[in-house]
Amino acid sequence: MERFSTENINPDLSKERSRRTFDIERLTNFLDGSAQVTKRRRELDLEVLKKIDVNDTMEDLFLSREEKYNEAVRKAAVFIKMVQDLCLTDRQDIYCLLRMLFPNETMPITLSLSMFPQMIELQGTPEQVSKWLPRARRFEILGTYAQTELGHGSHIRNLETTATYDSRTEEFILNSPTLTSTKFWPGGMGRTTNHVILMAMLICNGVNHGLHSFIVQTRDLQTHQPLAGITLGDIGPKFGYDTVDNGFLRFDNHRIPREQMLMKYNEVTKDGQYKKKAALDKLMYGSMLATRVGIVIDPASRGLAQAVTIAVRYSCVRHQSELNPGEPEPMILEYRTQQYKLLPLLAAAYAYTITGQHFSAEYQRLNIEIQNGKIEALPELHADSAGLKAVVSSRASVGIEQCRLACGGHGYSQSSGFIKIYGTTLPACTYEGENTVMLLQTARYLMKMFNQSQKGTVLTGSTSYLSENVPVKSSIDRTLSPQSLLDALKHRARSIVTAASQRVARLRSQGKAAHEAWNLTSVLLTQAAEAHCHLFIAKTFLSKINNVSDPAVRTVLMDLFQLHAVYLISTDAASFLKGGYMSAEQMDIIEEGLGLCFDKVRPNAVSLVDAFDFTDHHLGSALGRYDGNVYETLYKWAQKSPLNKTPVHESFKYLKQVAQSKL
Amino acid sequence: MERFSTENINPDLSKERSRRTFDIERLTNFLDGSAQVTKRRRELDLEVLKKIDVNDTMEDLFLSREEKYNEAVRKAAVFIKMVQDLCLTDRQDIYCLLRMLFPNETMPITLSLSMFPQMIELQGTPEQVSKWLPRARRFEILGTYAQTELGHGSHIRNLETTATYDSRTEEFILNSPTLTSTKFWPGGMGRTTNHVILMAMLICNGVNHGLHSFIVQTRDLQTHQPLAGITLGDIGPKFGYDTVDNGFLRFDNHRIPREQMLMKYNEVTKDGQYKKKAALDKLMYGSMLATRVGIVIDPASRGLAQAVTIAVRYSCVRHQSELNPGEPEPMILEYRTQQYKLLPLLAAAYAYTITGQHFSAEYQRLNIEIQNGKIEALPELHADSAGLKAVVSSRASVGIEQCRLACGGHGYSQSSGFIKIYGTTLPACTYEGENTVMLLQTARYLMKMFNQSQKGTVLTGSTSYLSENVPVKSSIDRTLSPQSLLDALKHRARSIVTAASQRVARLRSQGKAAHEAWNLTSVLLTQAAEAHCHLFIAKTFLSKINNVSDPAVRTVLMDLFQLHAVYLISTDAASFLKGGYMSAEQMDIIEEGLGLCFDKVRPNAVSLVDAFDFTDHHLGSALGRYDGNVYETLYKWAQKSPLNKTPVHESFKYLKQVAQSKL
Repeated sequence: MERFSTENINPDLSKERSRRTFDIERLTNFLDGSAQVTKRRRELDLEVLKKIDVNDTMEDLFLSREEKYNEAVRKAAVFIKMVQDLCLTDRQDIYCLLRMLFPNETMPITLSLSMFPQMIELQGTPEQVSKWLPRARRFEILGTYAQTELGHGSHIRNLETTATYDSRTEEFILNSPTLTSTKFWPGGMGRTTNHVILMAMLICNGVNHGLHSFIVQTRDLQTHQPLAGITLGDIGPKFGYDTVDNGFLRFDNHRIPREQMLMKYNEVTKDGQYKKKAALDKLMYGSMLATRVGIVIDPASRGLAQAVTIAVRYSCVRHQSELNPGEPEPMILEYRTQQYKLLPLLAAAYAYTITGQHFSAEYQRLNIEIQNGKIEALPELHADSAGLKAVVSSRASVGIEQCRLACGGHGYSQSSGFIKIYGTTLPACTYEGENTVMLLQTARYLMKMFNQSQKGTVLTGSTSYLSENVPVKSSIDRTLSPQSLLDALKHRARSIVTAASQRVARLRSQGKAAHEAWNLTSVLLTQAAEAHCHLFIAKTFLSKINNVSDPAVRTVLMDLFQLHAVYLISTDAASFLKGGYMSAEQMDIIEEGLGLCFDKVRPNAVSLVDAFDFTDHHLGSALGRYDGNVYETLYKWAQKSPLNKTPVHESFKYLKQVAQSKL
Repeated sequence: MERFSTENINPDLSKERSRRTFDIERLTNFLDGSAQVTKRRRELDLEVLKKIDVNDTMEDLFLSREEKYNEAVRKAAVFIKMVQDLCLTDRQDIYCLLRMLFPNETMPITLSLSMFPQMIELQGTPEQVSKWLPRARRFEILGTYAQTELGHGSHIRNLETTATYDSRTEEFILNSPTLTSTKFWPGGMGRTTNHVILMAMLICNGVNHGLHSFIVQTRDLQTHQPLAGITLGDIGPKFGYDTVDNGFLRFDNHRIPREQMLMKYNEVTKDGQYKKKAALDKLMYGSMLATRVGIVIDPASRGLAQAVTIAVRYSCVRHQSELNPGEPEPMILEYRTQQYKLLPLLAAAYAYTITGQHFSAEYQRLNIEIQNGKIEALPELHADSAGLKAVVSSRASVGIEQCRLACGGHGYSQSSGFIKIYGTTLPACTYEGENTVMLLQTARYLMKMFNQSQKGTVLTGSTSYLSENVPVKSSIDRTLSPQSLLDALKHRARSIVTAASQRVARLRSQGKAAHEAWNLTSVLLTQAAEAHCHLFIAKTFLSKINNVSDPAVRTVLMDLFQLHAVYLISTDAASFLKGGYMSAEQMDIIEEGLGLCFDKVRPNAVSLVDAFDFTDHHLGSALGRYDGNVYETLYKWAQKSPLNKTPVHESFKYLKQVAQSKL
């Protein structure tokens, strides 16, 4: 059993691989964190390959949505069995298993692993935790998290579902008072799960105490029938996520015991007294942060890395058109326009992957402090995670479509793999905090920090550049030194933050209310947040590269850093020209430098995507196969289309009636 | 029977509509060309509504791909019947019927209406035309156009399918000599059609005479079985286009009579003499041009206009978050960031629609000249149509996804309508000439014209600005006059064209071969082509507005023009700052001007999308309904999801085995 087919490698790909200047395995180990992690990941990949047919990812593409859902539930059962049989408890191990069983898809019980037990742990009393958590961990109950309503998204203070306490029976009465209060979208809620963590307005003695969380059983554990007073179902097909039954849920005087309100921080006594111990929204920060940090890594960075892998390999297999008249068709990666489409995305995929991993480790380190009440790091962590989630998921989504478009006609075939990758990545622009809302949260923090620095506070952490003395003229020259590139990105971030702050102040001085001034400046504020995040990513990427011991790996990563930064500057040239930070001559150096960066990265392109170490099963792509056997795979796969089951399709009857030859 | 439901209109939408400053009907008539065209279009819409259930567009979303195909063939038969019963021959009428029967989808016999008869007409001898064309027009035979091969796309000179003449039997022997020579992608080829126009290499007496076209029957007209020596089928699911059986086709010594080579311009005599009358590629320009011009209008401009309609209406129904703390949730179009996402796209949808229609009329006028041998206009027409196709389809595709993202979570539901619109528009970036290839064709023309102007030729037509004396400093001031905006776009186009030409010359002088210099400059060349096309669009848009007689309509269109141009400048500020064409102060005027443009267009936003006059059936969207009943529709539609057929889905059996409660 192999993770790749290594026979009959396309000769163009072999040639590309032979041009590499570094050891692929060392780079893979660096991306994984260590050689041990790489080894363990591959072991688990092979465990899954033993259980499944490697071709099934591409054959799943022929299924109807209902068949896909059915197949996903079957695989979810395989997943539970494997977790139990292999006694997996390590998060990383479970994640590897998931990715191999559900490449570029989501499991209908994903939230039963994550949000459902996390919320119990976070908000339950010790008694509640000991009652519910083990059952959730053993999959005896399958839960999801019900927050969003049909008419209400990120602004959770306006949710409408009610939980009214009845002290006579010591129960909460759950109701969906309006159409817009219908819970809508939670993953796995329509058909798969039998419990939810419900976010609802708590009403005690006629007083609305705001949003609280409740454990609610939705279906009978034996028969799986919905319980009385509960209406629920699947919300219908979406863009992507065919394997998940995102659901709707309505309550009609459904009663749950008092003990099923999660009462670690807030309590309703038997006689209906409400006791508040802490504001819930602050407490939810922790779990939101973890989720957002996770999104940066997967699906965002991972999705982009997969799309780039497919597009770069295909661009070395596909030959098209002519460069020099009369000569054979060159591989399409020889075209400068193709390099311009793909190589900056390759560099970005590295920058985002490495930043995501660094940030995740950093979060885990700080989270221990936060759990112990040391919450100073929280505001910065919150601002950076919101912004990084937004920037990386947006860029990755756009980048995946660019990769698809760079593959010409075959990019549109579902066998290209892009559809699943895009369908899994794009929604990350919206879930767990819509990206514009996220950027404005980052911007609010930046405004606060900028004002502090104006008042003389010396900033540390990710906004320290707002306190630094950065030269007013760029030092960019033909060497394109990392420091000069980083300085330029610092300059940009600081100048947009400054401009946004000044505009808010000017509007205020013109008599606008604070919220009006903010709204009128909001586009610039999102741009400030983006510039801050791009700087964060570049800084992190560079500092991680400087830690790499292998010189060949370090060199190729530095080439990617240079390309990444030069491309960022070249595509937002106005920010660097405005105010005279760069001269027109320096911008010409940047433009020409981009071409030099392409020339440096180009020979390593295939090896750099190989180092991501995706199996063919992960990619699910005829175009991105490791062995480059693109056309054979496309043709074989086409034969299996359900429309080809019979030589004449039954629909011929319609045309026969009206269009048959009169000869 | 109504084209819209006009009862129970959402009060926010009613209020928005009451704010309009112009007569919607007059704008609709302007977009259509005249009140008569509007009237005829609506009559045909109602004819279709009599035949079909208006809800079926959204219910089709629940079907499997095979069911969608089956349903599309059924509707294609309805289409043929209606064309016959209503005696439709006018292209515009047929187009209206198609759009209403197949909103945001493609008919499996679309090429039987277009490319198949067009090619016979264009390349057939009078005898061939009189034999085949009436049968094609009467749908007695259903044809498609088979050019692209598995391994070969836009570079048609390398196609591999062979047609070898056998003078003994007076037949051509068709063969697919390699895997990569398999015909791949033609619409309707897999299961629906029974004929193809085949592009193949003609071989006579061992000499390859290059690409020629042949009429080939693929299936028996009575039984619909594939003929001997022919292997064909559907290529499997794609991104979008579920209703079409894009196909593969292989030949194994399949023979066709000599008379089935289209011989208007080239002939093979009975004894195998080849007589060339004209080069085929030049002759095909005409039909390529028509197709590209058509793409600008539909799907590109139309797709963007539909997406904007949905997003703008939904943004006035959806209330979210808070602007002023304590006040009710505002409609999301009140947020500046939402205006920034949608209003420039609204302006672009108008600019593209109007440009597309103008260009199409212009093409029809010039085509009469071209048919009569007056081909002077051809190079410019070719360059502009290639570039416009690329710019408008790319911008529209990106814009559609921005509209979706601007609708938050519900944008991902297939009931939003965006998925179909995107799936129909995006492929236009690739088919009929991949967009980067298109832009480079435009650039080649621009380089030629620029060189002529450098040698003293005074250019006319769309490149006349290369000969004009444009001021070296922008005259932009707070009035943001149309002329100053247009001048800025002229400046940009000319300066990028100049820079590209200079770079090519510099590389040549450094000893690079012509093809190398071109390739190394190709990114800049595509940017030159884009700048040229944006200027073309802005110029056309403005000149059309100046012809509008109704002052209120003219004013609102002028507001859109201003927004469109200001947004173009603001998002490519570097091009205007570089070289000092605009000062930093002028760029600040542009930035602030953008906000003023939003304020002007905002009150008319809903009425401007209403004026596109899409029926709810055209949009197929719960979010974009004319009456704004978004949540009722989303909830009702969800009930119909096939996963909800039974209260417990059959897949429960898998989870029951592993996850059932141990209690």
